[in-house]
Formats: sequence, C-alpha cells, structure tokens
Amino acid sequence: MRQESASADTLIPMEESDTNKTGVVGTEREDGGTGGEQTANMNTANSLKEDKTPSEKETRREQETEEGQTQVEVCRSVPDLQLSIIRDSDLFGYVGIEAVLEQMKLKTIKAGFEFNIMVVGQSGLGKSTLVNTLFKSKVSRKSCTANYEEKISKTVKLHSVTHLIEEKGVKMKLTVIDTPGFGDQINNKNCWEPITTYINEQYEKYLREELHVNRKKRIPDTRVHCCIYFLPPTGHRLRPIDVEFMRRLGTIVSIVPVIAKADTLTIEERLEFKERIRQDLASNGIHVYPQKEYDEDPEEFILNERIRGNIPFAVVGTDKEHNVNGNNVLGRKTKWGIVEVENVAHCEFVNLRDLLIRSHLQDLKDVTNNVHYETYRVQRLNESNMTFSELGFSTWPLENGTGARCDSDSHL
Amino acid sequence: MRQESASADTLIPMEESDTNKTGVVGTEREDGGTGGEQTANMNTANSLKEDKTPSEKETRREQETEEGQTQVEVCRSVPDLQLSIIRDSDLFGYVGIEAVLEQMKLKTIKAGFEFNIMVVGQSGLGKSTLVNTLFKSKVSRKSCTANYEEKISKTVKLHSVTHLIEEKGVKMKLTVIDTPGFGDQINNKNCWEPITTYINEQYEKYLREELHVNRKKRIPDTRVHCCIYFLPPTGHRLRPIDVEFMRRLGTIVSIVPVIAKADTLTIEERLEFKERIRQDLASNGIHVYPQKEYDEDPEEFILNERIRGNIPFAVVGTDKEHNVNGNNVLGRKTKWGIVEVENVAHCEFVNLRDLLIRSHLQDLKDVTNNVHYETYRVQRLNESNMTFSELGFSTWPLENGTGARCDSDSHL
Repeated sequence: MRQESASADTLIPMEESDTNKTGVVGTEREDGGTGGEQTANMNTANSLKEDKTPSEKETRREQETEEGQTQVEVCRSVPDLQLSIIRDSDLFGYVGIEAVLEQMKLKTIKAGFEFNIMVVGQSGLGKSTLVNTLFKSKVSRKSCTANYEEKISKTVKLHSVTHLIEEKGVKMKLTVIDTPGFGDQINNKNCWEPITTYINEQYEKYLREELHVNRKKRIPDTRVHCCIYFLPPTGHRLRPIDVEFMRRLGTIVSIVPVIAKADTLTIEERLEFKERIRQDLASNGIHVYPQKEYDEDPEEFILNERIRGNIPFAVVGTDKEHNVNGNNVLGRKTKWGIVEVENVAHCEFVNLRDLLIRSHLQDLKDVTNNVHYETYRVQRLNESNMTFSELGFSTWPLENGTGARCDSDSHL
Repeated sequence: MRQESASADTLIPMEESDTNKTGVVGTEREDGGTGGEQTANMNTANSLKEDKTPSEKETRREQETEEGQTQVEVCRSVPDLQLSIIRDSDLFGYVGIEAVLEQMKLKTIKAGFEFNIMVVGQSGLGKSTLVNTLFKSKVSRKSCTANYEEKISKTVKLHSVTHLIEEKGVKMKLTVIDTPGFGDQINNKNCWEPITTYINEQYEKYLREELHVNRKKRIPDTRVHCCIYFLPPTGHRLRPIDVEFMRRLGTIVSIVPVIAKADTLTIEERLEFKERIRQDLASNGIHVYPQKEYDEDPEEFILNERIRGNIPFAVVGTDKEHNVNGNNVLGRKTKWGIVEVENVAHCEFVNLRDLLIRSHLQDLKDVTNNVHYETYRVQRLNESNMTFSELGFSTWPLENGTGARCDSDSHL
C-alpha cells in the first residue's frame, strides 16, 4: 500500500496545478501513506454500502477480509478543476473532435425542434398577419377566416395553433399562441392574468414531466419561448396597459415589443416614438429581450447592444406580393407607393425576423429554459418544501465524509 | 359568451383534424355553448389559484365579479397532436429556420463539451498508449512516467486525468479514467465493484445536481460515456473475468470491447478470435455498444449493424512515428515490418477511433444520458419513495379536472 502511494506520487502530472486541487491531492497522498491497508479496507466496506441490505453488506464485508481477496479503493474526481489546454499544434495528428458538431447537427435534423411564440396586443394591430409573414405561411388562425362579423371577445381567451414547418430538411414544430381580447375591454384590469397563468402552466407541465420517475426521453416543450408584444403606432408614449403588461410579464417570459402597422408613421415620428418607448421602458424598469444580464460574453454583448439600441422594431406585415422592378416582393400597395415588408429601408420587419429566427431562435429557447423556467422551478420547489432529506437521499456514501477516495489529476 | 363560442367555431382551421383532438375541441365548444358565463367565471377563479394565499384568492374572486371586469379564460394546449407539415414548397418565401443549426453549432463551440472515457483491462495491454493514440496526445498518466519499477497494484484503484483538447476551435474536456489493478490479482473476485461504484457515483452526483433547487445552468458531467474493455490477444475465447465484467457492467455503461495488441495475431487468428468473441457475447447475453435496442431509425440500424458485425475491434496503439514511403505514419516497427496503426489494412484502430470520436461521440453521450442515467435515476427515485404528493404538488390546478380550458388547433 505504501508502495502504491509512492508510485501514485510520481504519477502526478509534471505540469502541476496551483489551484486548490493540489491541496486535495496532497491530502489524499498523505492518507494513503499513513493509513495503509486499514484505510483501504475502510474504503472498501464503504464503497459497498450502495444498494445493499444490511445482511448483504455484512456478507460482503466478510468476503473482503478473506485471504488473497482483491482490495478495492474508490476514487472520486475533483470537480471544477483548472484544465490544461492541448491545442491543435500540440497534437501529433488530427483527432477529429469537431466531428461532434456534425453529429449534433444530424441529430437535430432527425429530431426536429419546438418553438412556441405568443402574440399579445389589442385587436386590429395585425398580429396574425405578422406571424404569417414571419413564417411565410398561414400559421395563425385569423388568416383562415376573413370573418368581419366576428365580435371582439368579451374575455381574454388564449388560442394556440401548431404546425410542423419543414425547410431544407429541418423540422420545426411551431406553436403560435394568440390572445384575442387582450386590451379590448372598457376595463382591462387584470387582463394579463390568463396570459401569466398560461405561461406558468407550461412551466408547471414541464417541471412535472422532468420530476416524473418514468419520464419521457424528450420532454414535450410547450413553454412560451417568445412573447411578441404589439404596440399601437400612436407616436406618443407607452400606455399604462403596455407598462403594466411588460413590467409583470417581463420577468417570466422573453418579451419582444414591436410597433405594429408602422407604415402609419413618418420617418421622424418613428424615430422619436422608438426613442420615447426606450426611455419609458428604462424608467419603468422593464426588461425586454435580449436582456443585458444574460449576455454570455463580450461578443454577444456587442451584438445585443446593437439590437437593444434599435428596439422596438417598427414592423409591417402582409401576405400579398407585388411586382417591384420586375421582382415579386411582399408589400402593401397604397396610392402613393408600395411598402416593401422585407426592405430594410422601408421597415424593420427583417430585423425582427433575423432576431427571432435567424440569429436568436436558439437563444430564446435557452433563455426560456435556463432563466425563466429555472426561476419558476426554484420558486415552486421552495413552495413545496422539497428537501433532500425528504427525498431519502441522506444514506448515500457521497454524503459521508469518510467515504470514497480521490485520485484525480488535471494538467495545468 | 355564446357569441364567443360560436365565433370560435368558425375559427377552427379549415383543414380539420381527424384525430382524437377533434373530439377534445368539440367538447370544449359544447361546454362553451351550454356553460356560458358561469363556466368562464369558474375558470377565472380557478386560474387565479396559482401562487396565492387563501385570503388573496378571496379578494381576487370578488374583484372578478365586479361589473365590467375583464373575464378571463385559461386555455391549455393539447399534447401529442398530429401535425400538418408545411414544406419548403408550401412556404411563400424563405424563412430561414435551418439557421438554428448554425446557432446551436456556435453555442457548442463557445461552451465546449465533456467526454469521459474509462479504460479497463489487465496491466500491460497498452490501455494508456491506446488512449494517447486516440487523442493524439499524452492524455493518460502512464505516458508521463516510464517507471518500470512500479509494482502492480494490489488493489483496483481508479485514477482520472482531465485535459482540455482544442481542435479547430472546438473544445473538449476529456477525462480518462484508468483502472489499474483490474484483473491482475490471484483472486479477482469482485474486482469490478470499485468500477461499478465509481460509475454509479457519477450518476448520483448528476442526479443530485439535477434535483437541487438552485442548480447550475450546466450540470458538470462526470458520467462515464464509454468504457473501453481490453481483451488480451489470446486467440481463444472470452475468459470468465471478461464475461463477468461485461455482463455486470453492460447494463450501466456503454462498453466497447477491443482486442488489445492485435499485432500478435495472424489474419486467420484475428478473424476466428473475433467470431468466437461475438458468439460468446451473444451466448452470455452481454450487450455491448452500440446496442440494437437503442437504434433510433432504420438508417442508424444499418450503420450500427455493420459496426456490430465487426466488433470487437482488433487494435494496436503507439505514439511513435515512422517513415513509410516518404510519409510519417504512426506505427510499430519490427524486424519484419511496420504495423501502421492508422492503416485499415493493418489493424482496426481507425474503426475504433471513428466509432468513438468521429461518428458516435454524441451518441455515446446521449445513450449515457437517456438510457444509463435514466435507468439509474428511476431506480434511485423508486428507492427513495419520492412521490408527487410528497412533493406537495397536488394543489396545482392542472390536477383539477374542472380547471383550465382547452382551445388548441392543429392542422392536418
């Protein structure tokens, strides 16, 4: 055993670490040197506690003390080690670890992914048309009927439609959640509540599935990844209902505010309106997506700052095509010209689409999972007073200080 | 309210579904038509239960019944809907959803990934050399010392070394877990136990972190993604220790058996030995990676069948380069020729590397997470008798049949 420890010493990598890891390894080595066989036997007994009834444990213990029996020693790796970096130039040939990117890509293509988008805003702001323009198809229900007889909801109802969109072999299960009736009443007090409830219910469903003993391999994700909030093109400021909605919902979902039907604003009106909205958001402590707190690195910060400086996007939606200079373009034709929806000189639809789909779709999903869902989860678990001891987890050897042994190196 | 329901009817997408979903929507409509305001109010009260103390609930309820107050109705999406597919050709323009692949790729590159590999086999089979050959660098500890004085362990010790390998900008945190002393004793009874314990401890650590209320955004993954089991090149059959190890461990970790130092076998010996090993694996009910049960589609099945028909790979490892026809190749030089490690005509090292790194690395991680870890998790949670009711989750409206309402469409 002493020999063992001595040889282990010589095997510590030459590029020694100067982190706390060194301390840990040092301790281990000393233990091994002084404890000898005894220590090894203690560890053996300990390592066998797992999944055994007391009588079984005894039997094993006896077996272990037989002559010539294998003695075992359990090791545990030290977490959060500082690591050495072996770069391309240090390798004596091509390994091919970047192949993992292609493997992940193929798996994503095979499995597809889910994206759930909610649209909120009073009726007549073109919510359905905008979503249909974003996804270049009739994915929102309004488009299916041109029923002008339809009365405005007396209640805030939530309605979801799900489509599978496939483009270049990539399959997206898109769910559009509409909120007809929001902001359309004489008294709109608490009109955000059904929306809050819906969003939280999806977190709850996910949490229950995650905690389930026999859970699905892939938990169906109905969580709202993005809430597009439609501001009417008043040219004034945020209205109390806008402030109230975004202040309350901004902490549970990623909100992307947009100025709807922006073709009614002149260039100057648009710039001034956007600036006033940004001031109002800041003065009311409203956080909209992408939030500064969740920028992960300077590169992302620079990219997102540009987006934050341009929010809210002033958008125009349509599913009509018009011929402009021989090209068919999506646009709204008026007596005085054609507003080209996908022309960045005309409106900011393209900026919105790039944010939601082409640059930040995965980030919206990640923020939903890592920030909003986690916040909900922590709150719910604290409410339900779930603790480890109640889970009956206290008997596991890891809890036991005298338990498993460490023998782990990291090259610095 | 009646008006509401009627208009909702007309808004059901024209491409009606013929799945069970239709039934659900139908029921909803009927409820809406007969229940009227009453139903809506019930839902309101119900939807507000969330996160409220009883007194707060009462207050809300009163507010809700005021004149002119917004009435809310909560909707719930129907899970497992059959979906319509909108393909490229159905879209009126390019959306760009495949951009998610690039977004995921960038995120993976930024975050890096973990891969933990365990090597098991008696001493002198070239375990460390093979791992160093796989990763083209000195990632296994043996390589750091050429200490032939070192005595063979009297115990099975586990030893892990962690390196960060960066290739083409992709960062992999590689941990190699060595198991010196395995199979080297006079009596090797239970010599797999420290290995089983180590593997389960990593699942336990992960499970604890996953269940923790304030958990890390990314759970550090120390779970063993792959266990390479080294068979000595006896040319005979599997030995009892091989059978025993793989039979026991095959259900908790992905085992990839290899024939070590295969340069000692003639072409015929190698073919016959491999065939006998496959027979022994089958007759002993041993499951090695990639397992038939986890093939996800016919394409994967065909690919994996080819691998299964060629297992175990007969490998040779080295870190020495030799000049062959003007090229530097990794090889072992003997008086009668050079065994080129990366030459598929000489040995199956390339097949092993392709499996572990270039084609199945992500799958090894996925199988570890989706199969082995889940199996462990189910077993542990059942042991600890954790149930939903104990988690205090029974008060949530979702449990309540009279609770939230559904209004969800899917286009078929």
